[in-house]
Amino acid sequence: MVAGPSAAVPLIVSAVSEHRSIIIRSDMTVELVRSSASDADVVFAARVSTVGEQSLEDLDADPASARGLIGYLMRERHGSPFEHNSMTFFVQAPIFVWREHMRHRIASYNEESGRYRELKPCFYVPNRERNIVQVGKTGAYEFLHGSDDQYDLIESSMVESCGRSYEAYQGMLEAGIAREVARMVLPVSIYSSAYVTMNARAMMNFLSLRRKAEGSQYPSYPQREIEMVAEAYEAKWARLMPITHAAFVAGGRVAP
Amino acid sequence: MVAGPSAAVPLIVSAVSEHRSIIIRSDMTVELVRSSASDADVVFAARVSTVGEQSLEDLDADPASARGLIGYLMRERHGSPFEHNSMTFFVQAPIFVWREHMRHRIASYNEESGRYRELKPCFYVPNRERNIVQVGKTGAYEFLHGSDDQYDLIESSMVESCGRSYEAYQGMLEAGIAREVARMVLPVSIYSSAYVTMNARAMMNFLSLRRKAEGSQYPSYPQREIEMVAEAYEAKWARLMPITHAAFVAGGRVAP
Amino acid sequence: MVAGPSAAVPLIVSAVSEHRSIIIRSDMTVELVRSSASDADVVFAARVSTVGEQSLEDLDADPASARGLIGYLMRERHGSPFEHNSMTFFVQAPIFVWREHMRHRIASYNEESGRYRELKPCFYVPNRERNIVQVGKTGAYEFLHGSDDQYDLIESSMVESCGRSYEAYQGMLEAGIAREVARMVLPVSIYSSAYVTMNARAMMNFLSLRRKAEGSQYPSYPQREIEMVAEAYEAKWARLMPITHAAFVAGGRVAP
Amino acid sequence: MVAGPSAAVPLIVSAVSEHRSIIIRSDMTVELVRSSASDADVVFAARVSTVGEQSLEDLDADPASARGLIGYLMRERHGSPFEHNSMTFFVQAPIFVWREHMRHRIASYNEESGRYRELKPCFYVPNRERNIVQVGKTGAYEFLHGSDDQYDLIESSMVESCGRSYEAYQGMLEAGIAREVARMVLPVSIYSSAYVTMNARAMMNFLSLRRKAEGSQYPSYPQREIEMVAEAYEAKWARLMPITHAAFVAGGRVAP
Repeated sequence: MVAGPSAAVPLIVSAVSEHRSIIIRSDMTVELVRSSASDADVVFAARVSTVGEQSLEDLDADPASARGLIGYLMRERHGSPFEHNSMTFFVQAPIFVWREHMRHRIASYNEESGRYRELKPCFYVPNRERNIVQVGKTGAYEFLHGSDDQYDLIESSMVESCGRSYEAYQGMLEAGIAREVARMVLPVSIYSSAYVTMNARAMMNFLSLRRKAEGSQYPSYPQREIEMVAEAYEAKWARLMPITHAAFVAGGRVAP
Repeated sequence: MVAGPSAAVPLIVSAVSEHRSIIIRSDMTVELVRSSASDADVVFAARVSTVGEQSLEDLDADPASARGLIGYLMRERHGSPFEHNSMTFFVQAPIFVWREHMRHRIASYNEESGRYRELKPCFYVPNRERNIVQVGKTGAYEFLHGSDDQYDLIESSMVESCGRSYEAYQGMLEAGIAREVARMVLPVSIYSSAYVTMNARAMMNFLSLRRKAEGSQYPSYPQREIEMVAEAYEAKWARLMPITHAAFVAGGRVAP
Repeated sequence: MVAGPSAAVPLIVSAVSEHRSIIIRSDMTVELVRSSASDADVVFAARVSTVGEQSLEDLDADPASARGLIGYLMRERHGSPFEHNSMTFFVQAPIFVWREHMRHRIASYNEESGRYRELKPCFYVPNRERNIVQVGKTGAYEFLHGSDDQYDLIESSMVESCGRSYEAYQGMLEAGIAREVARMVLPVSIYSSAYVTMNARAMMNFLSLRRKAEGSQYPSYPQREIEMVAEAYEAKWARLMPITHAAFVAGGRVAP
Repeated sequence: MVAGPSAAVPLIVSAVSEHRSIIIRSDMTVELVRSSASDADVVFAARVSTVGEQSLEDLDADPASARGLIGYLMRERHGSPFEHNSMTFFVQAPIFVWREHMRHRIASYNEESGRYRELKPCFYVPNRERNIVQVGKTGAYEFLHGSDDQYDLIESSMVESCGRSYEAYQGMLEAGIAREVARMVLPVSIYSSAYVTMNARAMMNFLSLRRKAEGSQYPSYPQREIEMVAEAYEAKWARLMPITHAAFVAGGRVAP
């Protein structure tokens, strides 16, 4: 059975034969590895427009005193003061999530390469918390909980299919075929690792599109798996820049 | 057997059972669907710096007379005059190619969605012209021709693996599971369609990194499949902007 | 006296001495010199996500039939289908306008150079339609009409100041001093020419920030002179893509 | 007389009348106010492609051990690993320098506003170290030292012209005219302050175009004043990322 959301450790499943096993996960890894990001960074960048050089005094200002300024910038959509900061994350997610993530062009990426290394047999399978039945029409989908049979089928199909694909990959590698060729059979559920660097303005754009949240001025309907990444980003970003985060939420979750 | 490069029509392979078949291709589709791009566009944009308003007279200038100017801009890396033009392509390529393509951020993309439609069973399998054995070490790889046994293995493994993956996909869809979930088992060799819009400066950046060409000032080692897309782009772009293309080649294939 | 908004021809003012005269303008030049932009371009780009290759049939579709689709994309903030088009403008505006314009990074620019050519003595002076008295506080300014004395002062100060600056420029050039040095004395009201290329998504972002328009979801307070450029852009863009423009207006003038 | 390059303190010049004085400077201010940038940041970002998750061990690696890796990335133009870092500068420079600076779109800017504050009477005047006589033709200019008479003229013309322009500005402000209108008479030599944030890849692009340095693969001919900013950036960046800087210089000063 696939690991639930409370399981800290991914489950290892013997999938294919007595010789091979694959790893199944239902979660995403998001670690903040570097950052230079605080609410104070918004203040000095914004204040240069009205006080010039004197804004240097705001470098270590108490950001709490600037709650009003940050709220004003957010409401009026003055976005540039939210760019003078930087956060670098280490993220592990399936390829189908990366495909959506990398459509966000205002960010920096370095990812594990299927050309330069043999990929690990680690695959995403949704757990039973994930709604999997889609109703409604294009542009207004809703997702509902599935039946036990449906979850059973997902689990067995995916474990078997991923296992066989990985076995085909291994077979080609063992026959001396290049990694970049053999990997073509691997499914988009295989995990890949990457570093992602972005600033708070890009983060807000990402969150506005990749979370379905109450109180959004413009609701979005992201796939659940990229939303899991977005939730993890948001939790970490909110700790670094709590006033900016609060203003983003209060303003209807629209990126300035 | 997989279709060779001379085959105009992709081969249909009965892959899985008497009920299902998949399509195997070894080529890429690149169609130019819209463009506003000519050598003359470089001339007026460049000449505004020295003659201002008078550059409007260059809107319909004979670009041949500007061969020297275009060569100068390329050599001196004045890149901005190459941005005032636009080309839109319809491209079909496997997902592992799209993954590399979309790392190019100075371009516009709209792609077929595995969330909004059922994906077609069309998969890439390399033909026997494609070198598949990698020798050398990281950063200095070379690719050599494989043995018949190796090509046979690629073909049989991929056809079988893609067929089974697609069967698992179909099985989940038939059981009422959402497309965005079921598609997780599909391999990165499945074809996807997209529109790509870029200007000549972005095109040159793409070509400088995604073709391994004689005479490159900075050699690149792209995966063969994205190079196939690059070759098709280059042929079409060269017809639209022949003088600019010639200057790019003469200048060592470095984007200005 | 300075030319009013109805004056088609800029006024020539003898400003400095019997030997020198300067040109005063109160308007902006915005010409569309190239475009590949229509509502149909939005349709095919959007439809590839749901119908893949079949979207090629939409290349020459009647865009009127897609009014609903375009409205939906705008409301749901699906921005990428609005990027597959291109417009190139020739614009003449004072340097203080260009300074704001070039903060818009998703656009291509080539501008007249004060290093490579002698700049023409053409300067912006606001006419009497332009409100010039600022009331209220930061973030909530309003501009009111001035008195005749105030307009007289603007006109006389600017004509005299620009004339003297240009005379100093000429004096240095005549003494053999490089253009790039001599031009340092020229005021930010001097006109400069440039080509600007952008797509409809970038255009909507520009318009959302650089026009103060009724019905804006997020009101902006641009300086009047860049708003004059924005108005001219909007008129020309609306003719090329009337359905997209109508959807932008109906949606509260927020860029998707 | 204008302050020479060794003068630490800008000179105050009584310029216009007994009531007004202006400040003349011949230098640029570049302060590093925030950074998260070290050679080690390049290493982990690059290594994820070959070792995936294990690259987390490189977060605090000794970058000296990675000299070879960084040199390889630079030579092969793998640019993305140089993006996972961030530097924020406070810069004071004349407007004609900002005009060139802001053409660099891969950077974040917040600048002092002539709409929101009264600008200070501080102007740039080149000192006698600055070559001011241009010889040669477009694309191959050289700058030579001027005569004493020429430097005298620059100094007297600029001081007088800037003084008068500022006086006109003050006169309009005193008459109740809005700052954003009155400032139109101010020359492009007036200083403005801004925060600039960029990563090392953007920095290398800036330096490759804005310094005329020995050993450049592609020589550039920047205006001296923006080169002064570039020199200050380079000195500060080289201290943060010495190995990356050395590889940039060794590789011919081409941005990867």
